[in-house]
Amino acid sequence: TFGKGIRVLAQDSSFYLKFGARFQTLYAGRLNLETDEWSDKMMIRRSRLKFDGWAYDPRVEYKLELAVSNNDNGNISPESGMAANIVLDAVVKYNFAPGWEVWFGQTKLPGNRERVISSQNLQFVDRSAVNGQYNIDRGVGMQLHHMHKIGNAVLMEIGSISMGEGRNLTISNVGGYEYTGRIEILPFGDFAGKGDYFGSDLKREKTPKLSIGVTYDQNNNAPREEGFTGEFLDQHKDLKTIFIDGMFKYKGFSTMFEYADKWTDGSPVVADGVFYTGKGLNVQSGYLFKNNFEIAARYTSITPEEITGNEEFTELTIGVSKYIVDHSLKIQSDLTHTDNQFSDDKLSFRFQVELAF
Amino acid sequence: TFGKGIRVLAQDSSFYLKFGARFQTLYAGRLNLETDEWSDKMMIRRSRLKFDGWAYDPRVEYKLELAVSNNDNGNISPESGMAANIVLDAVVKYNFAPGWEVWFGQTKLPGNRERVISSQNLQFVDRSAVNGQYNIDRGVGMQLHHMHKIGNAVLMEIGSISMGEGRNLTISNVGGYEYTGRIEILPFGDFAGKGDYFGSDLKREKTPKLSIGVTYDQNNNAPREEGFTGEFLDQHKDLKTIFIDGMFKYKGFSTMFEYADKWTDGSPVVADGVFYTGKGLNVQSGYLFKNNFEIAARYTSITPEEITGNEEFTELTIGVSKYIVDHSLKIQSDLTHTDNQFSDDKLSFRFQVELAF
Amino acid sequence: TFGKGIRVLAQDSSFYLKFGARFQTLYAGRLNLETDEWSDKMMIRRSRLKFDGWAYDPRVEYKLELAVSNNDNGNISPESGMAANIVLDAVVKYNFAPGWEVWFGQTKLPGNRERVISSQNLQFVDRSAVNGQYNIDRGVGMQLHHMHKIGNAVLMEIGSISMGEGRNLTISNVGGYEYTGRIEILPFGDFAGKGDYFGSDLKREKTPKLSIGVTYDQNNNAPREEGFTGEFLDQHKDLKTIFIDGMFKYKGFSTMFEYADKWTDGSPVVADGVFYTGKGLNVQSGYLFKNNFEIAARYTSITPEEITGNEEFTELTIGVSKYIVDHSLKIQSDLTHTDNQFSDDKLSFRFQVELAF
Repeated sequence: TFGKGIRVLAQDSSFYLKFGARFQTLYAGRLNLETDEWSDKMMIRRSRLKFDGWAYDPRVEYKLELAVSNNDNGNISPESGMAANIVLDAVVKYNFAPGWEVWFGQTKLPGNRERVISSQNLQFVDRSAVNGQYNIDRGVGMQLHHMHKIGNAVLMEIGSISMGEGRNLTISNVGGYEYTGRIEILPFGDFAGKGDYFGSDLKREKTPKLSIGVTYDQNNNAPREEGFTGEFLDQHKDLKTIFIDGMFKYKGFSTMFEYADKWTDGSPVVADGVFYTGKGLNVQSGYLFKNNFEIAARYTSITPEEITGNEEFTELTIGVSKYIVDHSLKIQSDLTHTDNQFSDDKLSFRFQVELAF
Repeated sequence: TFGKGIRVLAQDSSFYLKFGARFQTLYAGRLNLETDEWSDKMMIRRSRLKFDGWAYDPRVEYKLELAVSNNDNGNISPESGMAANIVLDAVVKYNFAPGWEVWFGQTKLPGNRERVISSQNLQFVDRSAVNGQYNIDRGVGMQLHHMHKIGNAVLMEIGSISMGEGRNLTISNVGGYEYTGRIEILPFGDFAGKGDYFGSDLKREKTPKLSIGVTYDQNNNAPREEGFTGEFLDQHKDLKTIFIDGMFKYKGFSTMFEYADKWTDGSPVVADGVFYTGKGLNVQSGYLFKNNFEIAARYTSITPEEITGNEEFTELTIGVSKYIVDHSLKIQSDLTHTDNQFSDDKLSFRFQVELAF
Repeated sequence: TFGKGIRVLAQDSSFYLKFGARFQTLYAGRLNLETDEWSDKMMIRRSRLKFDGWAYDPRVEYKLELAVSNNDNGNISPESGMAANIVLDAVVKYNFAPGWEVWFGQTKLPGNRERVISSQNLQFVDRSAVNGQYNIDRGVGMQLHHMHKIGNAVLMEIGSISMGEGRNLTISNVGGYEYTGRIEILPFGDFAGKGDYFGSDLKREKTPKLSIGVTYDQNNNAPREEGFTGEFLDQHKDLKTIFIDGMFKYKGFSTMFEYADKWTDGSPVVADGVFYTGKGLNVQSGYLFKNNFEIAARYTSITPEEITGNEEFTELTIGVSKYIVDHSLKIQSDLTHTDNQFSDDKLSFRFQVELAF
């Protein structure tokens, strides 16, 4: 079936592979509301090849995801060996006991919900600025996942130790490790089709479904301005982040919220730079009509720590989506008004076509 | 069948994929006819992964083509985000009415025939210098294609709007947009197997077949020396190009010609550089023997605008090809004499093996 | 079957493809035994996509192997066109007569055994320092392979001509060509499952099996410090290398040795740099228990030519491996003591998970 990948099961059932590819074509224009200047661009925003399945035993799962668009893979830098930076996920997951999994490799850390939702499965053209400014992205290390039930409620606990400087570095670990813990509770049980981790209520939940998650992340002696990305600074700081997020879906209506707070012990300003610290809030809601046409709205507020000199801003976004085949073939457009503390206010228009198999 | 790709049709007919891969191994040597110096190189000239098919509805076609050889993908540059530059084509085509298609994404612009013919399907080891100097390559944008018949004749009209600076940029659009129009007429009807867009008369047309095409391209406020490539200049110019090209095939005999003229309004010389303007002509013919052995000859003349200071040259090429399985498994070799206006004359020898599935 | 790739045979038997992918996740830590400083890193050490099979005729074989991890593909450099450097192997092999093959393209040269053994199939977490310092890696060119029998013994002779500067260059050939010859003799016949070219006696040979190989390589007018890699120097030297290596396997026991000697005519020190010349020895043995758990030990000694100023060192390594599914799903760990001539001694710990399908 389209959107489900090319699936291969070995004749002796010793192996399962699902292969998929996708690309997003984005047109983005921005109007400076003070100067009336228009600037725009068009690009293959993301393009991915994805391999996942299990090997030898269904309890040994793997995932390999490659980013092939230059808007999407990583910068060539000395820290990443001056080489093409294509691998996003490369992880082995071992389901060693019912409800328990250990992960080993590179993948997304158990951070904010918006980040962990695949960029294929978003309600708007792209993620909000809360994610852009505060997310903890991917890391290389180990994760322990535990999922269990208490009555009807589903609980998840995730713990992670990782290197702390993001993906695909070739240099030795700088500073300390990164420790991440996350708890999720789904008081009314599982969402249909793992709907707590995709945008829009495409499954039209018959009963209300809710997921609340809390993450605490501590990146010890972090060397990079934004933890997993940004310039490498000479002076390191423990970088701490809290995320509180939730997803609610019912009969085509969906709402997601996310609160982030990032700080260092003592000042985030060091001799050769500034760590990006502060708070952010994102709230978004959408309603999916019978014809798989959706209207959604989003409010985002970013409040960096004042001492960093970074700018406060709020964004109001209206989005429309036509889900031809769920998130596998869809057209999305949104309009965002950005109210900046210092710089000129902007109005942004985006139009995107997503095709994924 | 070899050369037709790995084809997958979803059990519920909701999806079709054709996957192919290929590589070209090239040995190229060049003799300086004045100094008698020989220089050579050998390389994986091109290597590609190709995904195409349709999604959900046979009228929704897609194509994703990746270049994995460093001789073939793009330079790492600040304008392309200092990231690996692998995506060639990523385009969705919607056949919204019989004979009509709208394309959205990144792909080849409707420029000169030699460029639009895949590098897999050439009559010689590589394209001619007319293409090298004047082609308009790929762009990101929209295209509208219309195909219809008048009696036995086939007509095509193509219109395109694109960003104007080539593929895979991460920066905002510079200068204006690029507008391209193309008309093709096939007075004696369609070629067998789309033979108007591959080299050599491998289908041995039983009746004479002809295609004539004309393209007009206007790249407004173009910032790059050669439009889609070259240095970004501070001073921009409207860059205009005309191509007139044709393909004729009959009983193993094929001939292709191409005329190009590129100019700017006013001088192509600006404060910080020179736009590559001028004229070019390429004519080539080949005859395919019964044993799929072909001998072909090519004459190419390049006449840059004198004020640019770029050099005139003419090339005479003799090529031999053995098509073991059409353009999917073949051995090609050619010998080129280059007569340069200023620099030393050269004699070039090339030998290439192509394998594509 | 897991570990055997996704295999596709065309319905008309005109084509065969085996597709595989793999990745290695490595944790590596190093203790400086003088300062007691610990430094570590974790990374996707290698990640590959592999296509091989035959085209049109089973005697026409091809192989395309891509490296997608930045720890594994090549540096972006002016000599390689400032472009992503992903292609490892792209080669066509033609079995033109029984026992004879001609290869055309880019692939590993017939150098030391440890190098030609795939990085997937090693007995330790990674290859020894003998390979690291002296191997001749990959090249672009032609190879002639001949295999035949004398009684029970198997003999192989390989000759190769290549460009001499490693893989994926876009510049013209520098200096002269590289000529490589190799002879192998397997006095007691073929190893089970080509076991002369993978680590560990996973096939548990019932009778003793032995392979001895000798390579002589001459890289004429070599421009790079280490032949296929390193800085390009202005002054070139003929770089000559001898390898003598062997593999022995019997009832779960395996031993491999390798001796390398690299030298230049005259001094390896030139005006703008130093060619890496000297000798190296590696000996390793392992025993595979019934439960596919292996213990292995390795001794490596590196003796650079004194005039180069490069440091002598010896390494002693103890490795343990659990082969869950041969080399396709395995966990390996090793501990290495390095005794350096000048710099501080080190103790290195490595842990790696390999998954390949």
